[in-house]
Amino acid sequence: MKGGGSIEIGEVSKDAYRKKGVKRGLSIMDFILRIIGGVATLASAVSMATTDERLPFATAFIQFRAEYDDLPSFVFFVMANSVVCGYLVLSLILSIFHIVRSTAVKSRIFLIVLDMAMMSLLTAAASAAAAIVYIAHYGNSQANWFPICQQYNSFCERISGSLIGSYIAVALFLIIILLSHVAIFRS
Amino acid sequence: MKGGGSIEIGEVSKDAYRKKGVKRGLSIMDFILRIIGGVATLASAVSMATTDERLPFATAFIQFRAEYDDLPSFVFFVMANSVVCGYLVLSLILSIFHIVRSTAVKSRIFLIVLDMAMMSLLTAAASAAAAIVYIAHYGNSQANWFPICQQYNSFCERISGSLIGSYIAVALFLIIILLSHVAIFRS
Repeated sequence: MKGGGSIEIGEVSKDAYRKKGVKRGLSIMDFILRIIGGVATLASAVSMATTDERLPFATAFIQFRAEYDDLPSFVFFVMANSVVCGYLVLSLILSIFHIVRSTAVKSRIFLIVLDMAMMSLLTAAASAAAAIVYIAHYGNSQANWFPICQQYNSFCERISGSLIGSYIAVALFLIIILLSHVAIFRS
Repeated sequence: MKGGGSIEIGEVSKDAYRKKGVKRGLSIMDFILRIIGGVATLASAVSMATTDERLPFATAFIQFRAEYDDLPSFVFFVMANSVVCGYLVLSLILSIFHIVRSTAVKSRIFLIVLDMAMMSLLTAAASAAAAIVYIAHYGNSQANWFPICQQYNSFCERISGSLIGSYIAVALFLIIILLSHVAIFRS
């Protein structure tokens, strides 16, 4: 928006200041949400990766034991959460840049595209893990898959719990992307 | 952009026409991609939902049979694909509106938000189904889950194939959302 005559300049710059304030507020909120998202994905990754249950009985050859890397979906889950956590930490740099220079547009669009990709990755990982957790809990009689949670109780509680962090992070990503759009279009 | 003096008007309107042409081109591409996406999700939903295999042998009480609704993840997959297909068909109305009025911005943002939600839904459904398809193919020795594909061969081929349509649609959504952003910011 270009102000026309010199009479309006005072009014225009006051309006611009107000808008800049709103944008700065949105950028600060974006920064906070990214930190929460990073903590949530880190918690998910760590709680899934450190799961390890040994059953109190054993045969001569086998110690019954459940770990996350017995199931490829859980490995994908840990990897995706680690990648997204790393991305969120790195994106803080751009987020701080947006707080300082709150009228930046191109870097915001760049960040939106990356956010969308990371949200898709995290959604995929969380759903794949959730599908396996469901089978672990309830099994499937038609396919003759036995619910392993009947033996590995604490293992199942941990893997179910670790899904929560991921879903929180997906919801935060949705909010972050919406806020970025608001920040861009209030110009 | 508001043109200043009356001398520049011709130039500005020529530039505006060119930009309008680009926007119209993007809108037409958006329309075509939505149709392809709709067909892909429809194909996924139908091919998964009509899967039905009976094994050629039976005991006195059991006819061995595999259908998609034996597994909750596949039911979710069919439902999500149907919902997204319906959404894509309905969104064609707004897409046509964008071809006619190519400078519209608010309706594009509205569509971007819905597109993002639908893309997340489809990603979640496709990943959950893929996780189960993986178990069906390779089983899991630690959890004692048997690979059912050894018996239900054609069932497994169908469910694996039906994933493709969903993943194509997810990729199309990414392109559609990017195109919408380009159409908005070239103003």
